[in-house]
Amino acid sequence: MRLLARPVFLLAALLAAAAGAVAQSPAVIPADLIVTRARVITMNAAREVIDDGAVVIRGEKILAVGPAAIAAAYSAPRTIDARGGIVMPGMVNTHTHIPMTVFRGLGDDVPDRLRRFIFPLEKSFVTREVVAGGALLGLLEMIEGGVTTFANMYYFEDEVARATKQAGLRAVLGQTILNFPAPDSPEPYGGLALAKKFIAEHRGDPLITPAFAPHAPYTVDAVHLRLIAEASAALDAPVMIHLAEMTEEMTSLRKDHNMTPVEYLDSLGLLNRRLLAAHCIFVTDSDIALLKARDAGVAHAMVANIKSAKGVAPALKMFNDGLRVGLATDGPMSGNTLDIVGQLGYVAKVHKLDRKDRNVMPAAAVVEMATLGGARALHLEDKIGSLEPGKLADLVIVDTDSTAMLPLYDVYSALVYAASPRDIRTTIVHGRILMEDRVVKTLDAPAVKAKMRVLSARINAAIAAGLK
Amino acid sequence: MRLLARPVFLLAALLAAAAGAVAQSPAVIPADLIVTRARVITMNAAREVIDDGAVVIRGEKILAVGPAAIAAAYSAPRTIDARGGIVMPGMVNTHTHIPMTVFRGLGDDVPDRLRRFIFPLEKSFVTREVVAGGALLGLLEMIEGGVTTFANMYYFEDEVARATKQAGLRAVLGQTILNFPAPDSPEPYGGLALAKKFIAEHRGDPLITPAFAPHAPYTVDAVHLRLIAEASAALDAPVMIHLAEMTEEMTSLRKDHNMTPVEYLDSLGLLNRRLLAAHCIFVTDSDIALLKARDAGVAHAMVANIKSAKGVAPALKMFNDGLRVGLATDGPMSGNTLDIVGQLGYVAKVHKLDRKDRNVMPAAAVVEMATLGGARALHLEDKIGSLEPGKLADLVIVDTDSTAMLPLYDVYSALVYAASPRDIRTTIVHGRILMEDRVVKTLDAPAVKAKMRVLSARINAAIAAGLK
Repeated sequence: MRLLARPVFLLAALLAAAAGAVAQSPAVIPADLIVTRARVITMNAAREVIDDGAVVIRGEKILAVGPAAIAAAYSAPRTIDARGGIVMPGMVNTHTHIPMTVFRGLGDDVPDRLRRFIFPLEKSFVTREVVAGGALLGLLEMIEGGVTTFANMYYFEDEVARATKQAGLRAVLGQTILNFPAPDSPEPYGGLALAKKFIAEHRGDPLITPAFAPHAPYTVDAVHLRLIAEASAALDAPVMIHLAEMTEEMTSLRKDHNMTPVEYLDSLGLLNRRLLAAHCIFVTDSDIALLKARDAGVAHAMVANIKSAKGVAPALKMFNDGLRVGLATDGPMSGNTLDIVGQLGYVAKVHKLDRKDRNVMPAAAVVEMATLGGARALHLEDKIGSLEPGKLADLVIVDTDSTAMLPLYDVYSALVYAASPRDIRTTIVHGRILMEDRVVKTLDAPAVKAKMRVLSARINAAIAAGLK
Repeated sequence: MRLLARPVFLLAALLAAAAGAVAQSPAVIPADLIVTRARVITMNAAREVIDDGAVVIRGEKILAVGPAAIAAAYSAPRTIDARGGIVMPGMVNTHTHIPMTVFRGLGDDVPDRLRRFIFPLEKSFVTREVVAGGALLGLLEMIEGGVTTFANMYYFEDEVARATKQAGLRAVLGQTILNFPAPDSPEPYGGLALAKKFIAEHRGDPLITPAFAPHAPYTVDAVHLRLIAEASAALDAPVMIHLAEMTEEMTSLRKDHNMTPVEYLDSLGLLNRRLLAAHCIFVTDSDIALLKARDAGVAHAMVANIKSAKGVAPALKMFNDGLRVGLATDGPMSGNTLDIVGQLGYVAKVHKLDRKDRNVMPAAAVVEMATLGGARALHLEDKIGSLEPGKLADLVIVDTDSTAMLPLYDVYSALVYAASPRDIRTTIVHGRILMEDRVVKTLDAPAVKAKMRVLSARINAAIAAGLK
């Protein structure tokens, strides 16, 4: 991955042009950044993989994708020689709670985590300062791990937005709404007003799509779910929610309404193209058909779902049925890590186990869910999710020199079964290089980590002193 | 991880001694290497974790383990300041086929892989040169991933031994024996003579324990399994075998002998303290009791077992029942990667899913299986598997500065749910530093990788030309 000296590059361009490899005349088209000599996973309609390819970027958009020879037709102030690397669409993390990095590693391997650990920890410790510090660590981890777009739901979501803009990532950010006093709102449902304010403040942002985030059907009542559905329609703002994830959720909705959670949301006007439903572990075939008919998105959080022993969501069926399904880490108290690379192997392998069939969920399908599938889940597939001219320039370069990545017979296999998030070398969002050769440019990594150490030491001390 | 300048170290030692932190007099005890200021996971009988600890090494053995202050009593030419890092017993990979790195990524997501892909590929390509090249890449990956001992079964096992000695890893190495012509033996069962020769040549080696490796109950007949049992007893040499892994194995042994594979091996005199049984997916409760009664070892290869859609081996029950069960990657055509760090999360999470209980298989148990459990599976727990005075000095330093490892509330949780094999910073075997600060000292990593690229290009070309 070297920056080629310009004369060498021009010479190569002229030679390529002379060899007839390029149709254009030697006159060059202006661009801003060229990433070349990589194996390019396009995720275009034909799912092409270009063995020795280039991606040309102007401003925030992709101008051209093709064999490396096409680069000769363009002139850019920067060229990244990604020789040997894999260039792919940036990965999409469709459901997480990034500020919870401050609590990562607390409450693992224990029962009733939500009410015994998560809610009490949040009540005691979640402040603007903690949200900002936790969000920055999460953003750092996502940039390092090749995530270029994420969907987040938490408190003080304006702090998450501020940190996200600093980091330069793309995001759908939802302000949490629930039926009890929250860290950012002393009154039950105070989150609704906060969400409206947050949406008004961030509409039209080139990187951030503001959203409503009612926590779950069991923590937001029907009256408020209806209000949120109406506000979402009026503002054309997304809604994200935990859905069909808890057994108590299933039984109480069955008892009170004789409905599945999916049917319940549909009855309240929430099941539509603005909805992003996280988990969907306990969905029936008819729920799946309904999710598809209403064009809702689904966030599949395999690692979190199995760590919590809840089960395997039917993401395989949803994917095969053409639903909008992407991959997700869930929050760092649930899945611990925030990169999508670490999900790939689990998604491929646990579905094989679950279906007792080693052929299902092949590596290429998993990479599709991690990229284009995630874009579709967020209803952003017209803008991101594949490397095609006209789409926004969100892409990553994956190093293939680590020992486990050798030999490289198949890019999809290598990514899904052997790669580590630490193999992401360069992360580009909206045409901007956020990390190059493992150095994050938009965040001060040592300062972000130092702040996390301060915050976690404070929490550790409080826990040692007897926080219940 | 800095090498402390000696005067600073001595000053610290004197200060510590002066403060009464150390019982010994200022007179120092000679040692060769001190690793200090780390969180030390001891895996001793009390399963102590020392928050700020030191490990003192002389020659190939551990001399002392304790709070960092104990270092003051020793003088060594080298001290590694592992500040902030985790020091733990080296991980044990109890079942693999390292030369198969040359085939890694071929035949993923396809049915009947063994007979359609693996055996034909081996027939066409496995030579001494390929075994040596594949083994070196595998050894490099294991050193980088924190594996300090591994159990291998393959062809040309003498080449694996040669590469292992060069790398400096500890290993139990088994020469493969089966009922058809193999790459290293034109006659069926030619592997038996090769195994005897191999064992004779490597007995008493400080790092290598040579072994018999009959492939499986369905590829070695009863006559030869008996011969192997007798030779193993006569030579006191281990036997490793694939066991209770294939549905066809289960049905044919039931049909022909009305036995489970475990019972079948017992009937042939193979089930004893010299046996290492890989997989054991389809074992019954009475098989488990029999494995325990006979004191056999079990290699649990979770990732490979679920990727092949075979099922979840009852490793949880085996571990809880006190069997000798360790973790394993299987070969790189099965599990793709050779480090044990990558197994930890799967073992913790898939058992929770399988048992529908988020409390089972907690992180500390998984780390125990990865270290002491692996040592027990190989019947080497008197020598390795924990950090205790008198044991061999096989240990690794894990970096805790990567973003996903922050914050660090619990070392076991961080290792199991957040660490990457790329977080291993330093690997020490038999008192020798094989890798320090990610630089492998015993192998020429670029040359090993370059050779793999040559070998895999040759295989790729042959496949493209129409290898069936």
